[in-house]
Amino acid sequence: MAEAAQEIDEALDMLLPPVEGDEARLFEAMRYATIGGGKRLRGFLVLESARQFGVGRSAALRVAAGIEMMHAYSLVHDDLPAMDDDALRRGKPTLHIAFDEATAILAGDALQANAFFAMTEDDAHADPWVRAELCRCLARAAGPRGMCGGQMLDILAELATSPLDETAIGRLQLLKTGKLIEFSAEAGAILGKAPSAQRHALAAYGREIGAAFQIADDLLDATATPDQTGKATGKDAALNKATLIGTLGLERARAHAERLVDQAQAHLAPFGERADLLRTLAQYAIERRN
Amino acid sequence: MAEAAQEIDEALDMLLPPVEGDEARLFEAMRYATIGGGKRLRGFLVLESARQFGVGRSAALRVAAGIEMMHAYSLVHDDLPAMDDDALRRGKPTLHIAFDEATAILAGDALQANAFFAMTEDDAHADPWVRAELCRCLARAAGPRGMCGGQMLDILAELATSPLDETAIGRLQLLKTGKLIEFSAEAGAILGKAPSAQRHALAAYGREIGAAFQIADDLLDATATPDQTGKATGKDAALNKATLIGTLGLERARAHAERLVDQAQAHLAPFGERADLLRTLAQYAIERRN
Repeated sequence: MAEAAQEIDEALDMLLPPVEGDEARLFEAMRYATIGGGKRLRGFLVLESARQFGVGRSAALRVAAGIEMMHAYSLVHDDLPAMDDDALRRGKPTLHIAFDEATAILAGDALQANAFFAMTEDDAHADPWVRAELCRCLARAAGPRGMCGGQMLDILAELATSPLDETAIGRLQLLKTGKLIEFSAEAGAILGKAPSAQRHALAAYGREIGAAFQIADDLLDATATPDQTGKATGKDAALNKATLIGTLGLERARAHAERLVDQAQAHLAPFGERADLLRTLAQYAIERRN
Repeated sequence: MAEAAQEIDEALDMLLPPVEGDEARLFEAMRYATIGGGKRLRGFLVLESARQFGVGRSAALRVAAGIEMMHAYSLVHDDLPAMDDDALRRGKPTLHIAFDEATAILAGDALQANAFFAMTEDDAHADPWVRAELCRCLARAAGPRGMCGGQMLDILAELATSPLDETAIGRLQLLKTGKLIEFSAEAGAILGKAPSAQRHALAAYGREIGAAFQIADDLLDATATPDQTGKATGKDAALNKATLIGTLGLERARAHAERLVDQAQAHLAPFGERADLLRTLAQYAIERRN
């Protein structure tokens, strides 16, 4: 995973080169928010799912980098004063602290646009259907029925007088983080023009892994220190955030995540040994410490 | 143009249906920002350029609505307190006033994603190359080398100690508003899979029209009342905004806009009578009063 993260960073560096002149500040902010940080879970999923179908590395890396830009933009906007008002992210000051609020809004906006550009960049070898399908699915995962919809539910949940139940929390998390992770696992199948059964299996794997990662994130927020995670912890309880830990308690939430990992791995059965890294990733989802 | 605006509103209404449940607030905010307002210049350009090639009305309307969503998102974010801090837009309170700041950020983000979705929605009749090419060009027009880059230059110009010169202002406006207007005029040619010479002619027409509209906007800001424009006026001078009027003065700016309109019309020569509405639009660009 560290190797893949390094490759994805190089791809991001190429897609977001430092520029001269007056726009320099915008590109610097975009680079600050994306390069050199994060686990690259989404990018790794793209690379590994693409490998199942022998997709060329450079095409897979471009898509992986694009999805990481989309994820980075969502973090930048979530951290804004009007949203979660966070000062620390990936062990560094958040973008609106390191630069300013207007630049953070703008860099997030530009990263979202660039994520789509990464899906569609004109390349004589790229299949138009692949490029159009990647854009369509990315737009759905990021829009009001995906990431943005989930963030809206999250904001409303904080303001609500009664806590969300397990079903509502599951739905919130499926939208807020699950849809983009699901798409990351599916993207390799789109790149490889995989048969629909295999594409669906990878999407289902991504859905379960996404839910497991979310629970792991919530467990870390509840039990780890900022030194371990590179961001503030203990925030969910303080902000009355809707998490499964609040509803199920630590132990039952952990057991639920383990079930999700088993289910994720079951979806990989058709892929044989080639999917071993995806199996390991599923296990890592609940064992990680940062 | 009023008829086209009506049709575009209907397309937006279909693409952004009111929903039930907890996400309702996000969809309401997106609808508030897009439906029932604006001149629909960009959408009108899509429809008229598509008509040159006999493109089906429903495909052209979907693309027109998508570009209007992109434009609406840029206005919502530009109006935010950390940006231009505007309270009035299209004769209504701006989105962060009518709702709240977090919802405005989020609705803008969701509108951008939905703009791409409108370009790529799966439709058995749509050519994959068309869908991919629309996404690629929209991403470029909206990203750091387009709209977002222009907005960054605009922010920096306000903070600068010496005023921008004519060339720098032209570049700022080309990025901030010109690129998306250029793409709007080009989109019909992409939809129609037009030969490259015709596609370039329409893009060039869009570029000139965009620059002329920007000067007209600046003239209205300097000379009209909020009642006429539906937004605050006199802001450019008060905020020390970089405009051609500040550099050239009213009369020379107006003459420059007229030259741009002549050039725009010259690009339409290959299209004959079918392009008469585009010719009229060019004239309207500098004669409008709101």
